[in-house]
Amino acid sequence: MIIVMKPKASKKQVDHVCAKIKEYKLLPHISKGKETTIIGIIGDERILQGVPFEGFSGVEKVMQILKPYKLASRDFKKENSIVKCGNVEFGGVKVVMIAGPCSVENRKQILTTAKAIKEAGAHMLRGGAFKPRTSPYAFQGLGEEGLKMLAEARDTYGLPVVTEVLDTRHVALINKYADMFQIGARNMQNFELLKEVGKTQKPVLLKRGMMSTVAEWLMSAEYILANGNMNVVMCERGIRTFETATRNTLDLSSVPLVKGLTHLPVAVDPTHGTGKKSLIMPMSRAAVAAGADAVLIEVHPNPEEALSDGDQSLVPAEYRELVKETEKIAKAVGRTI
Amino acid sequence: MIIVMKPKASKKQVDHVCAKIKEYKLLPHISKGKETTIIGIIGDERILQGVPFEGFSGVEKVMQILKPYKLASRDFKKENSIVKCGNVEFGGVKVVMIAGPCSVENRKQILTTAKAIKEAGAHMLRGGAFKPRTSPYAFQGLGEEGLKMLAEARDTYGLPVVTEVLDTRHVALINKYADMFQIGARNMQNFELLKEVGKTQKPVLLKRGMMSTVAEWLMSAEYILANGNMNVVMCERGIRTFETATRNTLDLSSVPLVKGLTHLPVAVDPTHGTGKKSLIMPMSRAAVAAGADAVLIEVHPNPEEALSDGDQSLVPAEYRELVKETEKIAKAVGRTI
Amino acid sequence: MIIVMKPKASKKQVDHVCAKIKEYKLLPHISKGKETTIIGIIGDERILQGVPFEGFSGVEKVMQILKPYKLASRDFKKENSIVKCGNVEFGGVKVVMIAGPCSVENRKQILTTAKAIKEAGAHMLRGGAFKPRTSPYAFQGLGEEGLKMLAEARDTYGLPVVTEVLDTRHVALINKYADMFQIGARNMQNFELLKEVGKTQKPVLLKRGMMSTVAEWLMSAEYILANGNMNVVMCERGIRTFETATRNTLDLSSVPLVKGLTHLPVAVDPTHGTGKKSLIMPMSRAAVAAGADAVLIEVHPNPEEALSDGDQSLVPAEYRELVKETEKIAKAVGRTI
Amino acid sequence: MIIVMKPKASKKQVDHVCAKIKEYKLLPHISKGKETTIIGIIGDERILQGVPFEGFSGVEKVMQILKPYKLASRDFKKENSIVKCGNVEFGGVKVVMIAGPCSVENRKQILTTAKAIKEAGAHMLRGGAFKPRTSPYAFQGLGEEGLKMLAEARDTYGLPVVTEVLDTRHVALINKYADMFQIGARNMQNFELLKEVGKTQKPVLLKRGMMSTVAEWLMSAEYILANGNMNVVMCERGIRTFETATRNTLDLSSVPLVKGLTHLPVAVDPTHGTGKKSLIMPMSRAAVAAGADAVLIEVHPNPEEALSDGDQSLVPAEYRELVKETEKIAKAVGRTI
Repeated sequence: MIIVMKPKASKKQVDHVCAKIKEYKLLPHISKGKETTIIGIIGDERILQGVPFEGFSGVEKVMQILKPYKLASRDFKKENSIVKCGNVEFGGVKVVMIAGPCSVENRKQILTTAKAIKEAGAHMLRGGAFKPRTSPYAFQGLGEEGLKMLAEARDTYGLPVVTEVLDTRHVALINKYADMFQIGARNMQNFELLKEVGKTQKPVLLKRGMMSTVAEWLMSAEYILANGNMNVVMCERGIRTFETATRNTLDLSSVPLVKGLTHLPVAVDPTHGTGKKSLIMPMSRAAVAAGADAVLIEVHPNPEEALSDGDQSLVPAEYRELVKETEKIAKAVGRTI
Repeated sequence: MIIVMKPKASKKQVDHVCAKIKEYKLLPHISKGKETTIIGIIGDERILQGVPFEGFSGVEKVMQILKPYKLASRDFKKENSIVKCGNVEFGGVKVVMIAGPCSVENRKQILTTAKAIKEAGAHMLRGGAFKPRTSPYAFQGLGEEGLKMLAEARDTYGLPVVTEVLDTRHVALINKYADMFQIGARNMQNFELLKEVGKTQKPVLLKRGMMSTVAEWLMSAEYILANGNMNVVMCERGIRTFETATRNTLDLSSVPLVKGLTHLPVAVDPTHGTGKKSLIMPMSRAAVAAGADAVLIEVHPNPEEALSDGDQSLVPAEYRELVKETEKIAKAVGRTI
Repeated sequence: MIIVMKPKASKKQVDHVCAKIKEYKLLPHISKGKETTIIGIIGDERILQGVPFEGFSGVEKVMQILKPYKLASRDFKKENSIVKCGNVEFGGVKVVMIAGPCSVENRKQILTTAKAIKEAGAHMLRGGAFKPRTSPYAFQGLGEEGLKMLAEARDTYGLPVVTEVLDTRHVALINKYADMFQIGARNMQNFELLKEVGKTQKPVLLKRGMMSTVAEWLMSAEYILANGNMNVVMCERGIRTFETATRNTLDLSSVPLVKGLTHLPVAVDPTHGTGKKSLIMPMSRAAVAAGADAVLIEVHPNPEEALSDGDQSLVPAEYRELVKETEKIAKAVGRTI
Repeated sequence: MIIVMKPKASKKQVDHVCAKIKEYKLLPHISKGKETTIIGIIGDERILQGVPFEGFSGVEKVMQILKPYKLASRDFKKENSIVKCGNVEFGGVKVVMIAGPCSVENRKQILTTAKAIKEAGAHMLRGGAFKPRTSPYAFQGLGEEGLKMLAEARDTYGLPVVTEVLDTRHVALINKYADMFQIGARNMQNFELLKEVGKTQKPVLLKRGMMSTVAEWLMSAEYILANGNMNVVMCERGIRTFETATRNTLDLSSVPLVKGLTHLPVAVDPTHGTGKKSLIMPMSRAAVAAGADAVLIEVHPNPEEALSDGDQSLVPAEYRELVKETEKIAKAVGRTI
């Protein structure tokens, strides 16, 4: 940590800051420049994170040197983590293809979809049983009935199932049926929920909040890891920017960036990331070219009748084409599908 | 709702859209322009909100005409709502002054603060017992012990208490001790939590999410209202933008804007909205000048020892000055404190 | 400047960075922490600004300590600068009220407006002769004819005139007619234009770019000052964010923030900052409450016939009301209008 | 254009709006819903763009139906435009590789770089002679001397040259030496400059402004086309968002999006788009996977000595590797390099 003093800071103010640092058994290291004095802290600055130095008189600003996350960091673990989910592995040579409808709507819909995406080449099934909807008047999901349908689809077609968890009270229930928890963008900083999934050993797909920096996203992963669950897959799904031509701005540069900062696998969700059918194929290709370990796509047998997100769902034939095209990119970067 | 067809849309595509509209007992209204055809829907378009017209072939875009919220809208209720919280009223002539520490740390701290802010002119006490912290290693709050201390401070000094609720499992507990729930920025779209506080009759201070549009913020209020609790106070607390010189960008224009769109009172939190001590006074003045019904300020008797947010807490003497200055502005706009 | 080395940086890499620093006659100051080595530079780090240390092998990141602007800084000049423009002074006790149409459209329109705003209490007249329009097919301004009309209005009503300059080739022409240059938001980083107005002695109203940080805005002021013209007034006019309910997000916290960082006066433009007539009055009040030295408002005698920005123009009677209300706030903060 | 009236709008207000529409020889088309009245305009609404309907009494909001650009639109020209620049073609099967230093620094530097990138497989040389620098104290470019060096490099190695133009006064000079104008991000809405390059027939590389929507970017292309120059290549280079871990957020989804909206070719600049050396290779791959017609990369023979942007420049050997890897992606999407 570096503490920059104001140009006219007094010796007393500098001494006061140093005294506080020493209270924590750390060593302050003073550099007096022509215009300003800076105080560097030698040792593990993380233990000072709660000290409000910016409020101390004479202090201009405080700069962090170390990354605030530890278990999630590549400095903690050099080699890529492989996260296993049933017969599927995230973070290996194979790019994991996940597909399915936004919401589980009925038994027939989810079984039809599971069959179709399996044939198209998908490895995992997604589908929401509890839905976070902007409007209280919109379809909120089938709840446990939906979970049962997902489990049946998994058992029938051999596709591990990922589904969203919204509420700490549902963790045990979803744990019973699903193979992977999804933490949605709106819950990326629902810390109580992160703690609860962190207490299980089930893999977690952690979507990036639409307002979240890469550092905050990694801190949310840290919550899960720190509670004992090391099976986290990061998932870029677009951030909110001033641009309204797409639903979100898919930040693909976060893929190689995050893979440099953490050992955890990184997935991409081009469906929510763009919100536009015509952009899903090119952005799936681009995601794999950028190094994504998994690609999530919304697929629905009959999008016009979908209860949510029908606008942006592919039909199975389109998805089959997408898998084929994405596979060519995977090969071009030395991977498979 | 207006559905804009693509320039080359076929008659069959237009007919298909119209047929779908009629399924919902609504009337499509076709306007053929030189370059494009548009279909207007006569009637309450809200019942079409789930239909994925943007995914229909031949459709270029869909534009909403009506506001997606109903109970929260000024069209639903013309006159200002007054939200009562103990002896305090939000939305009347009097601007409500709320103050207190970021976290409840111990009995002495909260009692000292309550006494000091009372003397300075505050009407309500704030303080966190459950804290949403970016880092899993940071102080997470005292929990029920903290709630008890808040209740004692309330009983001793006659200041109603507002405190944050993070988890659906804590709603009943907090309901027992506090006078008002706070929904924090990170939980503005935690819909399960909104439903739970909506089932109580306790007032709710609903902070704007840091990346939430005004429309989404009002939809979150709608969740609470639709569950039966009409006692909602909106709270602007800054949004996230590209600017990093302040912690957030306090969007004061949202105050008159939201007051035009809804009958609910609107509060402002200049402390989190700026994250800088030197900006809290001018932005408190500006908030009241813009029409705010309440102002929330973090006050701590000894910020250097605070367990959270010490950087941006005022000491009681500074707060006293702030109340005095803000009062002058209140009078200039025909209000009191 | 602080250079943070990567956790595994070699001694050779550290030495290489230090050698480079010494080439510039500065002293590197090495602090070896448990996890990382940091190198502080003693002396005026600004001379190192061009050195690409982030590209040096072994370097993790580079942090600036000093502000990149000098002449614009409060460290350079402690007391507030007063910028004179005819009989008007920016930065004193009096808040400067500037009003007028978006574009000069014809002689009658500008003379009528000038008379009306003068009567309403304005001190200066604004109006565009050269207009930066998003569409090549939109009205682009009257050019020199418009400047002549502005000059006539100034001479008739005694209101100094501010008008926008778009092109280095127009600087001399506008200098002949106007009393103050306006640099628009889109040209805040048109550095050639900044240099040209910097070579005159005419006051410059420097609007903040809609996606410019406060630091960049001050650097643009520095361009003008560094070329010899110290008469700069900063003007906040809203930034671009994800929120679309307002045309821009008026960042009023930039007013006290920038006044703390620089000695230059700060104006606010609530018209462009909100783009909504109903928000102009409350945000004008809030601007003055936040400490603004001037307020710019678009006024048009007949907004429905305006060739640009009629949507957001006040009529003279509304402006008169605004001046009256704003004056009450000015008094509440110890100022006049 | 759709004009939505306020819920309580009077017949007189509706009639007033309709009368105005008829003044422009267009037909208003009234739809009375249960809650609101909407007025659709039949015919080419673009001629109403200057009419400030949002300011008319009784009007709630105005929605555009047609795209505001015409010549740039795919509706105007269905097939892809091929933009020729010397022996290079943008928009064909071949992906154009452009490389070179941020600034031209001296004769040796630019000739060495040109030779090296030619050998690595580049098709065009980039380099700045006039530099837009945030600081007035930073290196501002060699001016005409730099242009001469670029021309010599072009003549020696057969690489067409693209260089930035900052000022209307430099257009003729740069036109003399360079093969393509670059309009930088900060000048995307410098409309006078767009008009001037629009009056030449030289190709223009139009970078997206860091704050610009896709629609605004296309409107800036429209300025050039409307002045007679059809040789425009769009260039995505990252937008500004809240994320600070990268210099900008490279919006790759804009590539397929813009290629759907316009017939013009689209290039990508991963160097400025990310500002981080380690991200340039993966984002170059991703750019081509997303459909980019050209890739711009900063290459410098000795980045540590670069006068600007040395942090993010590749050395020739790294660039050679990048071309090789990018070529594999090009093949996977049916293109060549």
